[in-house]
Amino acid sequence: MSRSLKVGIIVNPRKTGAVRTMRALRTVLQAKGISCVLEEYTAELAGEGGGIPATEFSKHVAIAAVLGGDGTMLNAVLRLGKFEKPVAGINIGTLGFLTTSTDDDLESFAEALETGSYTISKRTLLEATVYRAGKATETFFALNEITLARGETGRLVSLRATLNGDLLNHYRADGLIVATPTGSTAYSLSAGGPLIEPSAAVFVVTPICPHSLSQRSLIVADDAVIGLSPENPDDGPMLFTADGRDNSRIEPGDSVEVRKADRNFLLLRYGGMSFYEALRQKLHWQGL
Amino acid sequence: MSRSLKVGIIVNPRKTGAVRTMRALRTVLQAKGISCVLEEYTAELAGEGGGIPATEFSKHVAIAAVLGGDGTMLNAVLRLGKFEKPVAGINIGTLGFLTTSTDDDLESFAEALETGSYTISKRTLLEATVYRAGKATETFFALNEITLARGETGRLVSLRATLNGDLLNHYRADGLIVATPTGSTAYSLSAGGPLIEPSAAVFVVTPICPHSLSQRSLIVADDAVIGLSPENPDDGPMLFTADGRDNSRIEPGDSVEVRKADRNFLLLRYGGMSFYEALRQKLHWQGL
Amino acid sequence: MSRSLKVGIIVNPRKTGAVRTMRALRTVLQAKGISCVLEEYTAELAGEGGGIPATEFSKHVAIAAVLGGDGTMLNAVLRLGKFEKPVAGINIGTLGFLTTSTDDDLESFAEALETGSYTISKRTLLEATVYRAGKATETFFALNEITLARGETGRLVSLRATLNGDLLNHYRADGLIVATPTGSTAYSLSAGGPLIEPSAAVFVVTPICPHSLSQRSLIVADDAVIGLSPENPDDGPMLFTADGRDNSRIEPGDSVEVRKADRNFLLLRYGGMSFYEALRQKLHWQGL
Amino acid sequence: MSRSLKVGIIVNPRKTGAVRTMRALRTVLQAKGISCVLEEYTAELAGEGGGIPATEFSKHVAIAAVLGGDGTMLNAVLRLGKFEKPVAGINIGTLGFLTTSTDDDLESFAEALETGSYTISKRTLLEATVYRAGKATETFFALNEITLARGETGRLVSLRATLNGDLLNHYRADGLIVATPTGSTAYSLSAGGPLIEPSAAVFVVTPICPHSLSQRSLIVADDAVIGLSPENPDDGPMLFTADGRDNSRIEPGDSVEVRKADRNFLLLRYGGMSFYEALRQKLHWQGL
Repeated sequence: MSRSLKVGIIVNPRKTGAVRTMRALRTVLQAKGISCVLEEYTAELAGEGGGIPATEFSKHVAIAAVLGGDGTMLNAVLRLGKFEKPVAGINIGTLGFLTTSTDDDLESFAEALETGSYTISKRTLLEATVYRAGKATETFFALNEITLARGETGRLVSLRATLNGDLLNHYRADGLIVATPTGSTAYSLSAGGPLIEPSAAVFVVTPICPHSLSQRSLIVADDAVIGLSPENPDDGPMLFTADGRDNSRIEPGDSVEVRKADRNFLLLRYGGMSFYEALRQKLHWQGL
Repeated sequence: MSRSLKVGIIVNPRKTGAVRTMRALRTVLQAKGISCVLEEYTAELAGEGGGIPATEFSKHVAIAAVLGGDGTMLNAVLRLGKFEKPVAGINIGTLGFLTTSTDDDLESFAEALETGSYTISKRTLLEATVYRAGKATETFFALNEITLARGETGRLVSLRATLNGDLLNHYRADGLIVATPTGSTAYSLSAGGPLIEPSAAVFVVTPICPHSLSQRSLIVADDAVIGLSPENPDDGPMLFTADGRDNSRIEPGDSVEVRKADRNFLLLRYGGMSFYEALRQKLHWQGL
Repeated sequence: MSRSLKVGIIVNPRKTGAVRTMRALRTVLQAKGISCVLEEYTAELAGEGGGIPATEFSKHVAIAAVLGGDGTMLNAVLRLGKFEKPVAGINIGTLGFLTTSTDDDLESFAEALETGSYTISKRTLLEATVYRAGKATETFFALNEITLARGETGRLVSLRATLNGDLLNHYRADGLIVATPTGSTAYSLSAGGPLIEPSAAVFVVTPICPHSLSQRSLIVADDAVIGLSPENPDDGPMLFTADGRDNSRIEPGDSVEVRKADRNFLLLRYGGMSFYEALRQKLHWQGL
Repeated sequence: MSRSLKVGIIVNPRKTGAVRTMRALRTVLQAKGISCVLEEYTAELAGEGGGIPATEFSKHVAIAAVLGGDGTMLNAVLRLGKFEKPVAGINIGTLGFLTTSTDDDLESFAEALETGSYTISKRTLLEATVYRAGKATETFFALNEITLARGETGRLVSLRATLNGDLLNHYRADGLIVATPTGSTAYSLSAGGPLIEPSAAVFVVTPICPHSLSQRSLIVADDAVIGLSPENPDDGPMLFTADGRDNSRIEPGDSVEVRKADRNFLLLRYGGMSFYEALRQKLHWQGL
């Protein structure tokens, strides 16, 4: 890999030791002739100048390095915007599903970048558009999942789901999740959904605590357009979330349309664990 | 059964035809020498005088007749207060888990009362006490279940559950349900819990979408005292509900203590379906 | 559609009224100028001559009509061999997931054939090869699923699953199912698997009663080669099945390799229900 | 505790190091004035004389010590027969649900016996009677569960379950499990059942891969008599097992009656883990 390789670094400001890890990473990268630039808040946190907005990374860096756990990676997806270059997650502590290596491993990470001996795991993103009074008003991107769920009420809500415009089903449930393969190990799994290997070209629609026991997760081809809408005005406003954040209230009459985004997320992988090794380790498959 | 039998009637004001059904019921009861008294809002709805508060039923009537579905029955449990006499649910339309008969059946219901040919299914109630700053501040009763769940947030919350004062478990989940056998066919079932026959002296603790896949429903003897509390101040206020209503916010530092109430709910049953017939019909067991 | 259209008919000999339905079908088809030929056992059952083996259908008929339920369709897949023309399932009684119409509907079925107003739902088949002492000894095809499960023993068995030659996981379970989207509504569903729409290019690997609670169904792209083998000689012989039949004993040291077959099954659909309508009806989604 | 305390020892002959552990245990017990006697096969394995049959333990020893894992404990239940004195499971390696301590812990175990500082966890046993041609022919006891499941066939079977003589349900499934609270952490859990604390006076009936998705586990009071029988002669013989062994074929026309046994199993506990600590550790509740 060329000497001119530039890595942009984003850290999770809430993680203890994040700045120290950032400095350690920068040191090992620079020792290999790889230059670094900090994201603006990261620079501020480190008491340094010269930071640039994450949204500018696509113009200035070849690789983004994100220091933190899976949550930090999800956040970086949002902040990087349309960034179609490799993103490496460096966890401080244990390995997550989205992270490339841990902070014990900085030297081998730098070496992988230097020699170009890494692979890219291309991950699908969801794009969700909220319609109010028939007009598209907001757009959200998600690497794991979007959900439409009951607001602050103790009752089930009624939801209508469509697939390419045709009725899929009426649900009485706490809510619905639409997840990518990447998100199949997150909230959808907790709600009873299956695991999906990253290369399968599908989404999963998982009902949350459905009233009808036969309403299982449904796997659909990822070229589908999924529509979600509240069905019963008495249910009050519902809560829309993308990757567990970006809360938006969905009122009766509003709807959400979910499809594959026109961009992907390129997860940098090297040496370490395969998807299945991660499953076996994270889900304690080995232990039992 | 004595001529002096008096039945108190409560109707669901939101159910179309409820007043008409009430009048039809009163007519068939009176024809058998059974007198009736209306609950106050029921009387108002019917444009009649002479209604009495539901809380006074225990003094004045031998049997309560509730016109509506399972939701109306849950509501009646709340409104009747400490009422340890038989309660008959008369559904307008289809049969529910808590209802005794439908409005097609008024004659045979009246006959069952007249001849005393009915049975009582004794149902346990939950009593939940909310503690704030160490002090008991509110008490709730529930026939189905109580829940402690995340508030208006897209993230999992951390909950601590104790059993008779000892740690049961730390949960990362959408929330926790504590249900009675009666409530085992309601929300707990949607969240993955088992069915429990009414006479089993147990409660079920069911996590809602737990992060750890091995955190199944747990059955405990119903003389246990179950404690629930938020563990992480960052999770914000949680939502406490009893039978899907009575919302109360639970702040970090608050806790909820759940035990068997000192009163029971006496469900009047006759002729009709056993618990297992109801399961087979309501859950479509027969059809497949 | 041309006058020369020829339909081959197979009936389930165990279904009461099958021959009568066959005759009724033939009558309405012939009235529209569509000729018919009977499969050999069907001809025998009807006391007629002129039957041909199902394996000859591919040479002689343009469409196969199968009279019976989902089980009869699965059986026809086996008997038709490599038959890549439309197959219509005509159920005697209620509609199944694989059937096109019921015997109440023969006229409109004939009309659909006459006018060519039908669609084809292309279904993937599984091809499973059994290896004994390193040699491929038997090959099986399945429309729904193949399973490798414990033999006549009351104990869990140990299974090793690979994906494209790499270790997927070690399972301690009653067995493993590999199902197509078509088979996602059958045994895999009973074992906890998700629903999969027919056009999703995936398989699902579902463990049966796994010892580890986190071993959920896994969705893999359908170009994968899945290997299954017993891991523990003490477990004794295991049972291999394809579409619930074709039992074969798998001894320690044997293995099974599963991939997408080089042929598809072309399900003829017209008028009637979409996949989602079938789900909603068959799984009682509407009722609750 | 009196000097005259006598402990009977049974080892799992298939566990490496079992004899060595037995000798180590005997040494620490004798050092505290507690005498030991070996079960006959254990004595043989150790090349010693003086062994007595396990069925004689009830006459000669005050406490049984079983060296092995959960499987060895289940086996000891069978072999001890009606033995209503404390049984301590000493695992060689990791702790199981039924074991009291590990072989690292022999000194503290001996101390607990010497000072009497242990508790008893009383566990219910199941008694299952097989009826053939209307006559009781065999009786089985189980600490975990009994199952009635399909024989060597790839198809679902039809089972009828009754409760105190009344129809509970018709099942189409791989089989049915009736489990004790003790068994709720074993096969029933793998088949989707809930966890049950040992003191809850209930059994759980768990269907294995039921065709109908709403056929969940059912909790019944443990004074119930549960009847199980094949419903469809075409299903062929089914397999009955008690604690995963004692295979018996159940033919069409046969039936099985399951009830609480007239004896209990007294699990000796000291110091170590509570039931909930065991759950948290064994099910990896802590890790996630």
